[in-house]
Amino acid sequence: MKVRFQGKVLDLQAVWMEGRRVKFIDQRFLPHEVKFFEAQGPEEVAQAIREMVVRGAPAIGAAAAYGMVLAEAQGRPLEEVAELLRSTRPTAHDLFFAVDAMLRAAADGRALPGVAQAYVEAIKDRCRAIGENGEPLLPSRGRILTHCNAGALATVDVGTTMAPLRLAQERGKEPFVWVDETRPRLQGSRLTAWELAQEGIAHTIIVDNAAGHLMQRGKVDLVLVGADRITALGDVANKVGTYEKAVVAREHGLPFYVAAPLSTFDFSLEDGGEVPIEERDPGEVLSVDGVPTAPEGSPAHNPAFDITPARFITAFITEVGVLKPTELGRLRAHPARDVPK
Amino acid sequence: MKVRFQGKVLDLQAVWMEGRRVKFIDQRFLPHEVKFFEAQGPEEVAQAIREMVVRGAPAIGAAAAYGMVLAEAQGRPLEEVAELLRSTRPTAHDLFFAVDAMLRAAADGRALPGVAQAYVEAIKDRCRAIGENGEPLLPSRGRILTHCNAGALATVDVGTTMAPLRLAQERGKEPFVWVDETRPRLQGSRLTAWELAQEGIAHTIIVDNAAGHLMQRGKVDLVLVGADRITALGDVANKVGTYEKAVVAREHGLPFYVAAPLSTFDFSLEDGGEVPIEERDPGEVLSVDGVPTAPEGSPAHNPAFDITPARFITAFITEVGVLKPTELGRLRAHPARDVPK
Repeated sequence: MKVRFQGKVLDLQAVWMEGRRVKFIDQRFLPHEVKFFEAQGPEEVAQAIREMVVRGAPAIGAAAAYGMVLAEAQGRPLEEVAELLRSTRPTAHDLFFAVDAMLRAAADGRALPGVAQAYVEAIKDRCRAIGENGEPLLPSRGRILTHCNAGALATVDVGTTMAPLRLAQERGKEPFVWVDETRPRLQGSRLTAWELAQEGIAHTIIVDNAAGHLMQRGKVDLVLVGADRITALGDVANKVGTYEKAVVAREHGLPFYVAAPLSTFDFSLEDGGEVPIEERDPGEVLSVDGVPTAPEGSPAHNPAFDITPARFITAFITEVGVLKPTELGRLRAHPARDVPK
Repeated sequence: MKVRFQGKVLDLQAVWMEGRRVKFIDQRFLPHEVKFFEAQGPEEVAQAIREMVVRGAPAIGAAAAYGMVLAEAQGRPLEEVAELLRSTRPTAHDLFFAVDAMLRAAADGRALPGVAQAYVEAIKDRCRAIGENGEPLLPSRGRILTHCNAGALATVDVGTTMAPLRLAQERGKEPFVWVDETRPRLQGSRLTAWELAQEGIAHTIIVDNAAGHLMQRGKVDLVLVGADRITALGDVANKVGTYEKAVVAREHGLPFYVAAPLSTFDFSLEDGGEVPIEERDPGEVLSVDGVPTAPEGSPAHNPAFDITPARFITAFITEVGVLKPTELGRLRAHPARDVPK
């Protein structure tokens, strides 16, 4: 992705390996400052995931894959490190998918650096394919509402929801994006708006509360979001608030698309009710950037995700095509679910 | 309302007259600081309304009534001052209701200080009646979701949504309130949580995005909100985000109650589409307490209210009873619509 840094335009990933270190764009400081975070061992990778230096299901998967590479290089017991990494965040499926892929590769005696690199390159290819598959769904001058960030920052590079938007822009469709700010962590206003600005895609930030109003007034053509985990039946765990947008979109007959690679699908779960929902620090609700926004002593509850049942979803945009929730069965044994060798 | 200030517990109103001055609890500084704002003339009253020193439809009406008192005392042309006050904020109906009532009183040769005082006392009485009418709707240990602030701060004293909650608490029902933080201005976390804390009512703050998730998980029994304007057909203009909550509440079969005095009903409008929706400074979306939360240069859109169509509303809790949207016709000529003499 394009990143303007110290007067230059760099082409960076959200996370990458450099020698025996894992480097991250530290997303906690965006959009105000471009800073980097460096992990020398798996503990620091785990910290980066837990503290949201990196976030977004596919990018978390990539970070975990690199974390396993560091563990092997340092002669650490891989099962133990796998457990550490799995414990960082409970909802995103790609984390478990990537860690398991690395454990299998190690058991097969393959060289982990190459496997991790292939995993990361595959994410980017999958995102590009999501772009190609999703772009035809975007009407010319379409007004697209998005929630949270499923851009390059969330997927190492390219992005899931961002990929069709970028292609639509390149192809002269002039998309316009309504960016939900996405409280509590503001990934919409901080990260999605920043990426859209870097790409020159027209956008306007709104508070999450305003999305329904805009739909009611006919100012939204479709909703496009990413996912953290998708069950066999097509229920979607994604950033808290996604569910409300989906219910209101259906009220207005608006298409609701979920863009995600196959690594986000968890066929071991049928129903969204089985997905563990991470509860984060109440402090995220009670303050913004350290500025308190509530009375001292008032408690808060901070579920980070919610479940959008399959019946609210028009289609899934994946690297192997656009599928309705009822068509997900065919993904179960799809060869694209394999990690590249 | 109870206000802890400099070690004492004071009994204050959101706005009151002291001699030839209008005094306000300056709501811009809550919950961190209790500060006061003083208006010596109608311009300062208009400023207080515009800059949200005072907000909430009934409290805005009261402030405007006092503003007319100052205007008369200073020998100012009342029609001109009325126009100034009306221009401060476009959505709340009580503002227009109060200004018109004062103009009529002046035309009738009545003494405005007494009329304004009676108007304010009537608001408090109406809120108390809303409490009595609404309290039976709250189940014991009910979990009530609320959006924005329709408490004492919004209504001079007592509150509309707050009145049934306070009575339920007094009567041992142990209500529990989910407080939507209510971006962009955070009236929920700043003001409603503060009022609930002063009253000792159990509550927990959530980001606006989490309300749907809580409804889906069966953790909400009903929704209770205030209103800024209600049309003849029962469409409700209220703080942006109310509409989303209403749509999701209906999806879950939850009762959705609107508490408001008759001064908030505007029988000159049939349909919610006719209500002017205030658009406020985009800076409210792009920052919190002056801390920027978005990239420089990214635009924002900031509608302050939205419209919840009557079909989503279970009932209106008014000072003259609990009415379904289809029953509003009987309010048109209700004697309680008169301003007390």
